[in-house]
Amino acid sequence: MPEPLSTKPRGAPKRQSFFRRHRIRDPRPPAQSPGSLVHIGERHEEDVHFHIIDYDSIEANELRTHSIEKCLDFEIVESPTWIRVIGLHDVEKLARLLEKRGVHPLIQEDVLNTNQRPKIEQIGDTLFAVIKVLVPSSPPERGFHVESLSILLSKHLVITFHESDSDLYDPVLKRLHDGHGRLRNSGSDYLFWAILDAVVDHYFIVLNQVEDEIERLDSLLMGGSKDKDFDPRDLHGLKQDIFQLYRLIRPVRELVGGLSKIDTTLITPATHIFLRDLYDHAIHAIEITENLRETVNSLRDYQTNAVSLRMNEIMKVLTSFATIFLPLTFLAGVYGMNFTHMPELAWRWGYPALWGVFSLVALAMFLFFRRKKWL
Amino acid sequence: MPEPLSTKPRGAPKRQSFFRRHRIRDPRPPAQSPGSLVHIGERHEEDVHFHIIDYDSIEANELRTHSIEKCLDFEIVESPTWIRVIGLHDVEKLARLLEKRGVHPLIQEDVLNTNQRPKIEQIGDTLFAVIKVLVPSSPPERGFHVESLSILLSKHLVITFHESDSDLYDPVLKRLHDGHGRLRNSGSDYLFWAILDAVVDHYFIVLNQVEDEIERLDSLLMGGSKDKDFDPRDLHGLKQDIFQLYRLIRPVRELVGGLSKIDTTLITPATHIFLRDLYDHAIHAIEITENLRETVNSLRDYQTNAVSLRMNEIMKVLTSFATIFLPLTFLAGVYGMNFTHMPELAWRWGYPALWGVFSLVALAMFLFFRRKKWL
Amino acid sequence: MPEPLSTKPRGAPKRQSFFRRHRIRDPRPPAQSPGSLVHIGERHEEDVHFHIIDYDSIEANELRTHSIEKCLDFEIVESPTWIRVIGLHDVEKLARLLEKRGVHPLIQEDVLNTNQRPKIEQIGDTLFAVIKVLVPSSPPERGFHVESLSILLSKHLVITFHESDSDLYDPVLKRLHDGHGRLRNSGSDYLFWAILDAVVDHYFIVLNQVEDEIERLDSLLMGGSKDKDFDPRDLHGLKQDIFQLYRLIRPVRELVGGLSKIDTTLITPATHIFLRDLYDHAIHAIEITENLRETVNSLRDYQTNAVSLRMNEIMKVLTSFATIFLPLTFLAGVYGMNFTHMPELAWRWGYPALWGVFSLVALAMFLFFRRKKWL
Amino acid sequence: MPEPLSTKPRGAPKRQSFFRRHRIRDPRPPAQSPGSLVHIGERHEEDVHFHIIDYDSIEANELRTHSIEKCLDFEIVESPTWIRVIGLHDVEKLARLLEKRGVHPLIQEDVLNTNQRPKIEQIGDTLFAVIKVLVPSSPPERGFHVESLSILLSKHLVITFHESDSDLYDPVLKRLHDGHGRLRNSGSDYLFWAILDAVVDHYFIVLNQVEDEIERLDSLLMGGSKDKDFDPRDLHGLKQDIFQLYRLIRPVRELVGGLSKIDTTLITPATHIFLRDLYDHAIHAIEITENLRETVNSLRDYQTNAVSLRMNEIMKVLTSFATIFLPLTFLAGVYGMNFTHMPELAWRWGYPALWGVFSLVALAMFLFFRRKKWL
Amino acid sequence: MPEPLSTKPRGAPKRQSFFRRHRIRDPRPPAQSPGSLVHIGERHEEDVHFHIIDYDSIEANELRTHSIEKCLDFEIVESPTWIRVIGLHDVEKLARLLEKRGVHPLIQEDVLNTNQRPKIEQIGDTLFAVIKVLVPSSPPERGFHVESLSILLSKHLVITFHESDSDLYDPVLKRLHDGHGRLRNSGSDYLFWAILDAVVDHYFIVLNQVEDEIERLDSLLMGGSKDKDFDPRDLHGLKQDIFQLYRLIRPVRELVGGLSKIDTTLITPATHIFLRDLYDHAIHAIEITENLRETVNSLRDYQTNAVSLRMNEIMKVLTSFATIFLPLTFLAGVYGMNFTHMPELAWRWGYPALWGVFSLVALAMFLFFRRKKWL
Repeated sequence: MPEPLSTKPRGAPKRQSFFRRHRIRDPRPPAQSPGSLVHIGERHEEDVHFHIIDYDSIEANELRTHSIEKCLDFEIVESPTWIRVIGLHDVEKLARLLEKRGVHPLIQEDVLNTNQRPKIEQIGDTLFAVIKVLVPSSPPERGFHVESLSILLSKHLVITFHESDSDLYDPVLKRLHDGHGRLRNSGSDYLFWAILDAVVDHYFIVLNQVEDEIERLDSLLMGGSKDKDFDPRDLHGLKQDIFQLYRLIRPVRELVGGLSKIDTTLITPATHIFLRDLYDHAIHAIEITENLRETVNSLRDYQTNAVSLRMNEIMKVLTSFATIFLPLTFLAGVYGMNFTHMPELAWRWGYPALWGVFSLVALAMFLFFRRKKWL
Repeated sequence: MPEPLSTKPRGAPKRQSFFRRHRIRDPRPPAQSPGSLVHIGERHEEDVHFHIIDYDSIEANELRTHSIEKCLDFEIVESPTWIRVIGLHDVEKLARLLEKRGVHPLIQEDVLNTNQRPKIEQIGDTLFAVIKVLVPSSPPERGFHVESLSILLSKHLVITFHESDSDLYDPVLKRLHDGHGRLRNSGSDYLFWAILDAVVDHYFIVLNQVEDEIERLDSLLMGGSKDKDFDPRDLHGLKQDIFQLYRLIRPVRELVGGLSKIDTTLITPATHIFLRDLYDHAIHAIEITENLRETVNSLRDYQTNAVSLRMNEIMKVLTSFATIFLPLTFLAGVYGMNFTHMPELAWRWGYPALWGVFSLVALAMFLFFRRKKWL
Repeated sequence: MPEPLSTKPRGAPKRQSFFRRHRIRDPRPPAQSPGSLVHIGERHEEDVHFHIIDYDSIEANELRTHSIEKCLDFEIVESPTWIRVIGLHDVEKLARLLEKRGVHPLIQEDVLNTNQRPKIEQIGDTLFAVIKVLVPSSPPERGFHVESLSILLSKHLVITFHESDSDLYDPVLKRLHDGHGRLRNSGSDYLFWAILDAVVDHYFIVLNQVEDEIERLDSLLMGGSKDKDFDPRDLHGLKQDIFQLYRLIRPVRELVGGLSKIDTTLITPATHIFLRDLYDHAIHAIEITENLRETVNSLRDYQTNAVSLRMNEIMKVLTSFATIFLPLTFLAGVYGMNFTHMPELAWRWGYPALWGVFSLVALAMFLFFRRKKWL
Repeated sequence: MPEPLSTKPRGAPKRQSFFRRHRIRDPRPPAQSPGSLVHIGERHEEDVHFHIIDYDSIEANELRTHSIEKCLDFEIVESPTWIRVIGLHDVEKLARLLEKRGVHPLIQEDVLNTNQRPKIEQIGDTLFAVIKVLVPSSPPERGFHVESLSILLSKHLVITFHESDSDLYDPVLKRLHDGHGRLRNSGSDYLFWAILDAVVDHYFIVLNQVEDEIERLDSLLMGGSKDKDFDPRDLHGLKQDIFQLYRLIRPVRELVGGLSKIDTTLITPATHIFLRDLYDHAIHAIEITENLRETVNSLRDYQTNAVSLRMNEIMKVLTSFATIFLPLTFLAGVYGMNFTHMPELAWRWGYPALWGVFSLVALAMFLFFRRKKWL
Repeated sequence: MPEPLSTKPRGAPKRQSFFRRHRIRDPRPPAQSPGSLVHIGERHEEDVHFHIIDYDSIEANELRTHSIEKCLDFEIVESPTWIRVIGLHDVEKLARLLEKRGVHPLIQEDVLNTNQRPKIEQIGDTLFAVIKVLVPSSPPERGFHVESLSILLSKHLVITFHESDSDLYDPVLKRLHDGHGRLRNSGSDYLFWAILDAVVDHYFIVLNQVEDEIERLDSLLMGGSKDKDFDPRDLHGLKQDIFQLYRLIRPVRELVGGLSKIDTTLITPATHIFLRDLYDHAIHAIEITENLRETVNSLRDYQTNAVSLRMNEIMKVLTSFATIFLPLTFLAGVYGMNFTHMPELAWRWGYPALWGVFSLVALAMFLFFRRKKWL
């Protein structure tokens, strides 16, 4: 399983932003012939396995198996079926499944490439969507990791390709089992919506965590100059993370917006209203991200400014002390000189008088700095 | 009642921007089946109650009740009726009302979600609008709080859902009672406009307060370097607040603009000209907000610059003093040495001559810094 | 008369930007019934008065009066007529005039609201335009003030509403009197253009003044570090002013551009070519403003940078002096110690030798800083 | 001739950016009747003169004259003719020429206004274009000046209005004389293209000079901290210049792009492909300018940063020296005190021991700063 | 061969960004007659040579020659042919080839100008595309150089013009030889796609290198203040490089996007789906570049901030030391004075008492700075 990260509480000696982990590096040699399937992404330990749910308004049957044969043998009937493929690294198995369902070679490639950016495409009577999933770590861990989810929608079938198993889809599965609500009584297009909706809903959980982290930094900064606690690297890392989130979430608007423009009979009018609602959520998520970005930028500005102000304060103290003691030290030096003829040295009240001069000079300086508001 | 905030005069030890209060946190578990109504927002003390006004050009009848039954029994006739629902936390009551009026499940959800972003939607013969209300605190308190207002417009009925009771709509209610003016003689679409107009008019009151606050900071900054009075956190907080205002006000343009594009018979041509005027007001509010934003950014720039300039001034004083006294102190040190053979020490006029040297060095330094404009 | 401001030569203890004067504050209570006319703007001393010019290619008749009756009695015939209303605070008089000419209530409201943003609107057979006028102060005063100008154009009539009397329109009036040129021989649409053209032409005069002010600041900054003369508040104020100018001038593009799109017979094809020329001027004014904005931003950057560089210079001097004298003073201190056994003190050439050491150390330091380009 | 400027090598005591020279100041009084021709621009010494070339595929005849009569008498026949008007300040002569060719009054005005922004306009069967010419200074001078070029294209005639004579068009004239190549065999539209192409080609020469200047500053900045050589005013001026270039070059895209959209028979299909090529060049010039802008901004960033880093370095030296010598000087001071009872003073090895202490303290400090990487 | 550069590991005394190498300088004199062919670009040592591959589903024949005659004699038949021209500096040879294939003079010019920006153009039955190639240096060298690639596509022929020979196209050539896969069985349009695909695929390799370099700088910066290792010039250079990459890669979107809009029979529907995939890759490359840009900007911000923070730290140390030792030194100076009447000097415990005072003052200061978190 990909290691969780990003909005972790500080303490780790070196901050790990998820950007650095999700490299653009692409192990596939360039200029390959299309259709030569290669899995691009991290290799997970677990075996590829399949989770098949066939349901209608009366009952829901479920099958979990590691055998590709069982999966291929599964007969697609009139009732909607959801095939979840968990794990993408066993190229051979996936190739057989994709081949059997008649998927275009370029889409086969996209399914295996976890760096594929979010998009929606219609090829023939199949809709193909890629979306990024933000999987929150299970508490008490904080943070999240990013996965790619590919969805194929055809008449009675939804196939989803997951990088790893996660409980993100549990509510959808539960609604399939429970049997009340709209899900069991609707077609595969509604299931398609329900999966996308679950993904987008989890964006808000992650954004919430990021907001918590911003609030932590904000209160550290506002609370004063506890240098020991505030680490500017946190701000830098957070800024990076938010930019990455923005990059992942932004294409979802076009994706969902594109769904309503695609001229297809796969999506029924009844589902369209739910997609419009999903579109609203996507825009909301984008706006929150922009918001967080603005906030973190403003925090950075504030911090830069605070650093300058603190420097000012330090300089004032230094300057005041130095300029008060420099003339005093000079005077003391003068009367430490060994000239033979220094009449003041012999005066009876010379020494106390000098202390008077010391006090006067210091007081004058002090008042001067007071008026300048330096002390 | 939500606590007032934002443009409060400084004095509070920790600034409370409304951004931090209006969390994106969403108590609803993710991926719920749509239609499972949950109230998202702060729970207010008071009971949910209903305020029903039925009016025509001849008379206006009013009913205030806490009983959902009375509200449901209210018969909608040909004359326009305004049902104000105050308080959103009693989900059960609201569900019964919304059910009775045949509202789509997704819209039911939106009504209860006070984080819903401003939007306009037409479903069947009903218009549904969500707008953010900036409720100014009652004087002498300054500040404001943000509420969500949902409006349902159908043929002879306007239903509004308020988070709390406020006197923001009093002028509209007064015009309904007084009976002169256009309001009593027009249909529900004109009432719909009148409510939106009241909301947008209050934006200007809040923007006025923000402008006052900017002016306060501006005069603090321009008036000189009274560090004790100016708190950079105020500027930071103000910047955040203005950004939030912008985010809340901006969608109103699309909302009102969208109204004129919607193909509906609900809105009469006579009302369209008023909507165009409202559109103008919305754009004006947005421009003012952009303006405030630019101003506060410019202030921040000025302040950063002022900090640097002050540092410069401090450094000049330090440098001048140090460079004047360093050579003098050195000289005094020299003649404080205990060498057996130091002819100057025995000179008759050595001591006064040294004072002459001291003066010359100091004067030369002083003139040097004068020429450099440091003193 | 509104007090002049903005690009005034420095010297005023507190800079007055016109932004602060033109408050968004709106004395009208919110959510008023439309049509309840209130004058929004500053109340001027002078009485409202009317200036009526009726002209054709043969003669031009002029009438100046304070009496609303005379104005109402004025009969509109086939020849073009220009009614100038000077002063907007006598709501009753204006209401009667507007009522008589059959102006829509919302437009009546806009005429009286001097905060109305520039716009063009066609209602029935009337064109209504609002534009901001920059009235330069009469020399030797520099600066300008902002006024709102509302223009109503119908078949044979142009009505203009001025906040105050100014000589801005004198050239147009002179051309009306003189009788040569196109103006007397054309219809009211050409007069409409001539008025707008006079307004836009005056933008350039104001922009010229702003440019002069920028040039003054630029030469102050470039000429060196005469801190006494350059006041960073001037730069801040100028930036604000330019942004305000931009905000006022920018909508003129849409206004004039909108004129050519409006489907109206009020504007003859012969006049359209003049409007296109006016459009060019508007764009030119906008570009100049953007230009000034960029320039003032670049100046600010330069100034910030210059402050840093000066600080650097100061630090170098301080550092050089301190590091030269610190070791010398230490050495002098050493030989001022009173140890019983300090052989150097008794040496015959100890004292001169120490001066040699002093010189060597100082020289080494000096050369070191020379190589580092600090001195 | 306008004085050359802009990318001149530093050395001039005060940088002269061409922006400051090309004032927006407009000597024409505002709100003039259109058609009252005034020359707006600098008055050049030389007389206005005319250069007429009449050519066909067989021969090319040329006439240079100062007499407006000769120019007016020139008969326009079927073969293409190019009339070059050099000098714009003799309004009367130009008025007669423009009148004779039936040019619209507003265009007459534009021809004389050298502040006119680049544009393309079609009035009747005439195309009118204004473009800014960057005239490079003749070597070894570097720099350039800006001129306005107006071009009138009709069936067999091209009239160009030049502010001054320059060798920028020599290659075109040479191709007209030589007679090989396409130019002599094509119509006036091809000549029109050739002139525009010559203008745009010279943009690259000027951009090259700017790039050289950037490279000079870059290598100065990168080469280290030779303060004497790098003048921040150069960077500021360069930034301004590039912005001005951008402002001049940018409209050329719309100008050339507009040419292909204008529905005219003046431009033959064969020429259209050349205009598309010109369009490509214009975009290339714009991209290079944007590029230069980004580069100069990046340089400024780098310089600001470098200033901070150098300050850091200076501070480290100061701090290290001061903190090493302060304790030493203090100790020396202690043993210079005149207390009667100071046992250390009488110790046999007190003095050498103190030197040991001095060395230890200094060494400890040195190692401390070494570890902190300050020395 | 152009020298490699850009993301080279630091160590080179002066960073060489490829921007400085790829000058806009254009050796062609301005305003040349079109069709006068000049090679614009660097002159490479090697001879121009030709590489011709003629293939169908059965066999692939290959010819490598330096002789232009052999190339011209090559007969174009029904089977697709790929002519690779390597080296662009032998204008005469290329002119003969281009002439023979009937290429338009302006396109001939573009082929020879390696500064031509990426574009797609259709002239007659020929498609002409220019794209920038990023050729990675052969390992262990890092870095890359930029070349221009011109492609001509007609019915059965693809001609590509390369600045130099590189192994970038080896995978395509290998697929042509091997004979399995789609390439041998498809037309010239598929080959056209395959070449573009190879070019875009190599963008990712270069972007990977840039990302590595950013990561190196990031870890240097985050790892602490090892000034010796981090060179701010690297950051500046990287920023420039990324901007250049952006400028080169961005137009590819329009290029590939334009391909699907061009109304041509040259590209078969089967190939269109591959072009859409290529479009996706282009957008991905652009997004990654934007990403890198944002990251490098954020790094720069962080670094600026880090510099300020370090300065703060330095100032604190200096201030603390100075303010602790200044009063001590003053006191020591006082008791080094030679006044006759200084009672303290004679006190038995005067000296130890003073040490007590010293300690107290130092301790108080220390605690003061401790509380201020300066030490």
